[in-house]
Amino acid sequence: MASYFSRRTIDFLLYEVFDATALTRYPHFEAHDRETFAMSLDSVTHIADTLMYPYYREVDRHAPELRQGRVSVHPKVRDMLRALGEAGLIGANFSFEHGGQQLPELVNACLGYILTAANNSMLYTGLTSGAANLINAFGTPDLQSTYVAKLLAGQWQGTMALTEPQAGSSLSDITSTAEPQPDGTYRIMGQKVFISAGDHDAVDNVVHLLLARIAGAPKGTRGISLFVVPKYRLEPSGELTDNDVTSTGIYHKLGQRGTPAMHLVLGERGDCHGWLVGEPHRGLSYMFQMMNEARIAVGITGAGIASAAYYASLAYAKERPQSRRLNEKNQLDAPQTPIINHPDVRRMLLFQKAVVEGSLSLLLESARLADLAHVAEGEAKENYRLLLELLTPVAKTFPTEQGVRSVSEGLQVLGGYGYTEDFPLEQMYRDIRITPIYEGTTGIQAQDLLGRKVPMGGGKALQLLLAEMTQTAQQARTHEALVPYADKLEAEIERLRTVTGALLPYAQRGDTERFLMDATLYMELFGLVVVAWQWLKQGEVAQQVLSTRPPEGDELAFYESKVHTMKYFFHYEVPKTLALATRLTDPEVLTIASEKQVLM
Amino acid sequence: MASYFSRRTIDFLLYEVFDATALTRYPHFEAHDRETFAMSLDSVTHIADTLMYPYYREVDRHAPELRQGRVSVHPKVRDMLRALGEAGLIGANFSFEHGGQQLPELVNACLGYILTAANNSMLYTGLTSGAANLINAFGTPDLQSTYVAKLLAGQWQGTMALTEPQAGSSLSDITSTAEPQPDGTYRIMGQKVFISAGDHDAVDNVVHLLLARIAGAPKGTRGISLFVVPKYRLEPSGELTDNDVTSTGIYHKLGQRGTPAMHLVLGERGDCHGWLVGEPHRGLSYMFQMMNEARIAVGITGAGIASAAYYASLAYAKERPQSRRLNEKNQLDAPQTPIINHPDVRRMLLFQKAVVEGSLSLLLESARLADLAHVAEGEAKENYRLLLELLTPVAKTFPTEQGVRSVSEGLQVLGGYGYTEDFPLEQMYRDIRITPIYEGTTGIQAQDLLGRKVPMGGGKALQLLLAEMTQTAQQARTHEALVPYADKLEAEIERLRTVTGALLPYAQRGDTERFLMDATLYMELFGLVVVAWQWLKQGEVAQQVLSTRPPEGDELAFYESKVHTMKYFFHYEVPKTLALATRLTDPEVLTIASEKQVLM
Repeated sequence: MASYFSRRTIDFLLYEVFDATALTRYPHFEAHDRETFAMSLDSVTHIADTLMYPYYREVDRHAPELRQGRVSVHPKVRDMLRALGEAGLIGANFSFEHGGQQLPELVNACLGYILTAANNSMLYTGLTSGAANLINAFGTPDLQSTYVAKLLAGQWQGTMALTEPQAGSSLSDITSTAEPQPDGTYRIMGQKVFISAGDHDAVDNVVHLLLARIAGAPKGTRGISLFVVPKYRLEPSGELTDNDVTSTGIYHKLGQRGTPAMHLVLGERGDCHGWLVGEPHRGLSYMFQMMNEARIAVGITGAGIASAAYYASLAYAKERPQSRRLNEKNQLDAPQTPIINHPDVRRMLLFQKAVVEGSLSLLLESARLADLAHVAEGEAKENYRLLLELLTPVAKTFPTEQGVRSVSEGLQVLGGYGYTEDFPLEQMYRDIRITPIYEGTTGIQAQDLLGRKVPMGGGKALQLLLAEMTQTAQQARTHEALVPYADKLEAEIERLRTVTGALLPYAQRGDTERFLMDATLYMELFGLVVVAWQWLKQGEVAQQVLSTRPPEGDELAFYESKVHTMKYFFHYEVPKTLALATRLTDPEVLTIASEKQVLM
Repeated sequence: MASYFSRRTIDFLLYEVFDATALTRYPHFEAHDRETFAMSLDSVTHIADTLMYPYYREVDRHAPELRQGRVSVHPKVRDMLRALGEAGLIGANFSFEHGGQQLPELVNACLGYILTAANNSMLYTGLTSGAANLINAFGTPDLQSTYVAKLLAGQWQGTMALTEPQAGSSLSDITSTAEPQPDGTYRIMGQKVFISAGDHDAVDNVVHLLLARIAGAPKGTRGISLFVVPKYRLEPSGELTDNDVTSTGIYHKLGQRGTPAMHLVLGERGDCHGWLVGEPHRGLSYMFQMMNEARIAVGITGAGIASAAYYASLAYAKERPQSRRLNEKNQLDAPQTPIINHPDVRRMLLFQKAVVEGSLSLLLESARLADLAHVAEGEAKENYRLLLELLTPVAKTFPTEQGVRSVSEGLQVLGGYGYTEDFPLEQMYRDIRITPIYEGTTGIQAQDLLGRKVPMGGGKALQLLLAEMTQTAQQARTHEALVPYADKLEAEIERLRTVTGALLPYAQRGDTERFLMDATLYMELFGLVVVAWQWLKQGEVAQQVLSTRPPEGDELAFYESKVHTMKYFFHYEVPKTLALATRLTDPEVLTIASEKQVLM
């Protein structure tokens, strides 16, 4: 089987860079050790290898269809959901009490990475565990007992039903309504669009975690409540009754065609029952507590697709002969050389590798912060939480934006063949393009980063991050070979500080529009610096091994390749901060709308 | 009808920036004036509006199919080819003697731009005119009389049949053979892949301009000859006979699905007749004399698709309300604002506009150089030729590479809707992705630029270009408002000079691999500087109008928008040269293959 991810890289990150076993010293994770982690990883790899990766093209070519109100998906989706459910891999990060395995997020993130690398288009379970998580966290014991077990078994599907036709990025404009009933339930009316896995026949029920306004609720985001709205409601008799949720449309999408995106109409017959989750009007704040996780999940999807693309390009480049090396152009009798020997191709592959492994490292850093914010105590707990909050929009954006670029370079490696359906790159190119849009577009993430996360608590999270990064640079300095890279990272930390300092005064003056005008470029700068930090971390660990106990053969190549890719990132990608910082500190305003500046 | 290009921008470039009417003072173009140019533009617009743009989605959804050796395409392709043929718009740039209208390339490029913007996937005629051009230039009078009229009438299709399974970027490895026959013809045997429009039922014959080796020819590029190989050969009786060219496969592609890309097998029955074009063994040099034109045509396609995407995004952004402006976030009773009022969206639109109009300007600059290289005399003629040679790979690459990015930003403007088939952006995103691959990938163009064009004639072409750009900067200086941009362009010219000076010593030492290691980044730098020059040219013309005879209404907005977009390009895009120059002058070598550096 062609490879689509590197288990060796996962193990390197888990045990050598992020010390996953250290987490098992906390009581919450004490049931775990490296062996249980390996079992989860093996188990998910088996399912990915047998039920997902082989169907990557098929689910794309035979996309779900909506016929007479029913959505049919590829038959393997049912098998995959059941297998993941039976192996306890849906919500494996949940507590024992809530039906999970109390697996650290750090390891759980690796499971998601393997699944999305195998077949991102069959990824239904992230939505299900997100929905179950919300019910566990804020729902009544009744709601929990009705829904969670079925969801985690993969028998029912969960969704996040937020978006409406007139309210995409602007959730405050949601208009779906919930009318209170004497029995404590609500009657739901409204429309939802782009609901991923919003209806399909691989499960027996679909459970929507849905945002709506209770009649008379205040305007804006403070008047939105969260409801459980199933496709079929469970009667006291145990029967499932139609709950007046109608699939009126299925989107035809550029990619991720294996997962249906639905247009739903709720309450056409006035018989759509909803159950309030938590307190009225607090729905958006509940949803946002889950949003961190959802955003990291999208980042994982970006990194996973980019990983599959990297290994596909790498395999092609090693096998495809074309032309001779540039210094041997005139040796016409010589056989053609594999294209991996052309510097331009090697550059593209190194870019792919740097993006894939830099992204995964950042995502695992974030997952580990989520674990520590959960199990640590006191000030440390709070600091972990702050760092996680700060890094989340970056961990969503870097892997998706740079993932799109890296898959495009991967396609380019194959030349004309990359453009054809004979190779999987064209599909990966289509699939990954949604990730900078899902769960808040890059523009929204950038506003969250600069507008909310950087200034929060007087900039404390950013100070913590800069200190962490400085510490990595100082540690790297102990290796002679890494001193230039420690210097570079420190220069970037300083640059980030300067740029941030140049922007914050606009916020202090209350000119949000000017402050956030180029937030997307700030995000790009921030992402480059943070991933440079992750690469120096990885490089330091690898250099330590190479300096103190150099291995042989593939293992030697593995560690050398990490240091080499770190160098690639610093020499080719990091210089882009120069351009970004130049723009971000340039006083010229060109994108704030005014009467005089007509775009035509 | 939705707009997909701006005629006003074309007229601005033709008459205000590039002074198209000045060309009509040369005898070769004396039959033309602004009126004949307008007639051609109107005529092509009518065909684009009625026979191409309305079928943009349809030709994608109903892609050509190969059934029992026959390729069927959308029925409108036949109508479109006939209409263009009857209007004399295929090969309109050919001389009267060769069946054309002697239209300047400058105007002809605009025709191609309109056609590709309308429906890039229905663009068969560029291939036809390329083939006819080769026959006119190097073929015997017999070949000319047999083929050219039918090709220019749109009744027969022309193709460029270069690529073979083992020889994509490496044309020296072509193995198709041509066996001389007593009657002066050749018997052709071989395979060709990725032959665009290589077979279809909208024409009565397909004429391949095909590269093959005559038995016993020298190895490498100096042993390749050019042949005319028709699908049906014309018998002396006037009948068309099957010429043993078999369509064995049709590629299923990511985009440009309206045009079939064929796998052809020649001479399966030993009965494939070919006619030599020009002298034996000189085929590649003939082909390369046409290649400039083909590369510019691909650049035009990139710019055309990017144009259609820009107008689609712009229309959406003006109409789609979402959220409130950032400084009015709390006004929940206020209606949502059109997203064009969000700085991040406006930035993306300005990027699109800057790429589209900057690319078109560069392409028209190149087309005008082709005209002048044709009609001028003496040293001036040679200088125009040198400039054209130098700019051609850039005019192919900037519009395609940046076009891909700009269409992607265009899709992002639409958010989730951009990812669906309800809007054309997803198709444009697929269609444009081939353009950095066609007619020599970006990597190949970059090697051509740095490895061949920059050093040629002791660097004379580059000196000429730097002088041209400096002159534009000096002219812009006469406007107070443009002084900062003149300064910026001069700084970039200096940067380009420095970077080039740092790289050339590797070539002088004979270390081609090191010299060309980062040629693609050099290309990116070169493109940014050259398009900055084009924007300053446009800005200077617009500023001149605004300063001396300011118009009103839409015309005022038009000129202001040009100056504004120029500023966008200098403030947001040009700073990227900092990062590129840093990398290009950095001594660290990371992409030259060695035993020690294993990619895994």
